[in-house]
Amino acid sequence: MSFYIKKLAVIGVGLIGGSLARALRAQDLVGEVVGVNRSRAALEKALALGVIDRGTTDATEAVRDATLVLVATPVRSIAPMVAHVAPFLAPGAVVTDVGSVKQSVVRACEAVMPVAGGKGERKLHFVGGHPIAGREHVGVEHSFASLFEGSRTILTPTAQTSSDALERVRLVWEATGSHVEIMEAGYHDQVLAATSHLPHLMAYNVVNTLSDLEDQLRAEVFRYAAGGFRDFTRIASSDPNMWRDICLENRTAILDILARFRDDLDHLMAQVDAGNGDTLYESFARSKATRDRILAENKFLRGPA
Amino acid sequence: MSFYIKKLAVIGVGLIGGSLARALRAQDLVGEVVGVNRSRAALEKALALGVIDRGTTDATEAVRDATLVLVATPVRSIAPMVAHVAPFLAPGAVVTDVGSVKQSVVRACEAVMPVAGGKGERKLHFVGGHPIAGREHVGVEHSFASLFEGSRTILTPTAQTSSDALERVRLVWEATGSHVEIMEAGYHDQVLAATSHLPHLMAYNVVNTLSDLEDQLRAEVFRYAAGGFRDFTRIASSDPNMWRDICLENRTAILDILARFRDDLDHLMAQVDAGNGDTLYESFARSKATRDRILAENKFLRGPA
Repeated sequence: MSFYIKKLAVIGVGLIGGSLARALRAQDLVGEVVGVNRSRAALEKALALGVIDRGTTDATEAVRDATLVLVATPVRSIAPMVAHVAPFLAPGAVVTDVGSVKQSVVRACEAVMPVAGGKGERKLHFVGGHPIAGREHVGVEHSFASLFEGSRTILTPTAQTSSDALERVRLVWEATGSHVEIMEAGYHDQVLAATSHLPHLMAYNVVNTLSDLEDQLRAEVFRYAAGGFRDFTRIASSDPNMWRDICLENRTAILDILARFRDDLDHLMAQVDAGNGDTLYESFARSKATRDRILAENKFLRGPA
Repeated sequence: MSFYIKKLAVIGVGLIGGSLARALRAQDLVGEVVGVNRSRAALEKALALGVIDRGTTDATEAVRDATLVLVATPVRSIAPMVAHVAPFLAPGAVVTDVGSVKQSVVRACEAVMPVAGGKGERKLHFVGGHPIAGREHVGVEHSFASLFEGSRTILTPTAQTSSDALERVRLVWEATGSHVEIMEAGYHDQVLAATSHLPHLMAYNVVNTLSDLEDQLRAEVFRYAAGGFRDFTRIASSDPNMWRDICLENRTAILDILARFRDDLDHLMAQVDAGNGDTLYESFARSKATRDRILAENKFLRGPA
């Protein structure tokens, strides 16, 4: 299936928005790319890199005549941005986002989108999306066309979503080499709370616990942090703004998984306290087996980070 | 400073013991290397790889005439092994270990070592040691001569330790390219509880929390585990036997750091529950700054794992 986007508006020209634009341009699947950013410096960089054809700080101007609008801003800015540009959308324009939290974002965006179509289909042209492809380094200067190759992208349509719009967004992500799957928004949030938000928050928590140690011990802590520490805490170098937003927007699912983790931690502490070697061994062996199985089932996880 | 080890006995021929033997052989700093292992297959492999000159399952036989005995067995086997071979040690032989926990190991080993020296120095020739150089893959087949280059090795002498023995063990580790530091055993255990045991146990705990999820959600969890998950949980693929032993031997320091971690987790959960964005941002930003600083201060952490 082939498609062509006459005009793409990328609101938030960073790693994700920039990489999507590059991937579509590399295959001549897009005409004009207009970038929107609050920072003029980011727009200048994106222009210099050939990621966008034109940059503006005015999103309402950028979306005029756009056939596809990609909202790649921080999670909490997505719905306000969609509300801001909705009155200026061209008829039939499709809007999609890349937020890491979906239920609250999709609800808020659907509430402000115009109803599209005639008698036949009176549906919304908004499609919630989440490409699972983060990197430690953000910013358009780190974007590249193959970022999404072999990754998974989750789309979270609702009963109100136009099937045409869903199909178009699916084709766009598939064109980047990503594997697209459909999921209910609330379920997406539970899955991501477990696979992404839990490990990120616990890596942050480990580093904060070390920061809290007395000054003298902390100096040693800094000196003796070994290789495993680097890997383990890489995700604690992510953008604090993004993680604040995720905690605020995915509050329920995050609290649920943290409560499960805390129960497991209490159990671990009780076993260490009791010196229960057999139970400790079983727990570690099970964890190792699970982790090895997850990696075996996710081939793309075995490539470079 | 130069030295020569006429006969080295390596008890436990795995990644660490094998790599030390390789490093010393590569520089012609050792005469005969005798390997001791319960598994004959490991001895055959070590022989075939040229890591040892001779293999035996009888540790008491191996230590005869040895000038240096390296005990590289699992943590809980170190003191029983030292007790087992102590009556067969040559006069002046130095015994050292590589256990990840030091206070309990050093105490137990000192209690069984013969008192060496004449009128002048009546001291013990046991030196507790810990090279900070783990790898995901264990076994002598993964050993290599440069494993310790740029690493740190902690030695934990006591008032009873012979200064000659300490100096000899220091020279051995420095010859491998490791940076040697002296630390009190109990303090070592606190530092390692924070920098190594805490992250490892929390990685195990995250994986166990995911394993506990309902079957259906677990399937999705396995499919959507992203790149960060691989790095974060690499250390949850370590040897379960080793981590059981560490939990049993470093119980107090581990319980102390886990309690601190749990307090921080409770605080995090309260902030997420309250939707306190400012506090969440400050916490994540602080963690990111700490982590970035730790890496900046530990140049060797920035190389490949």
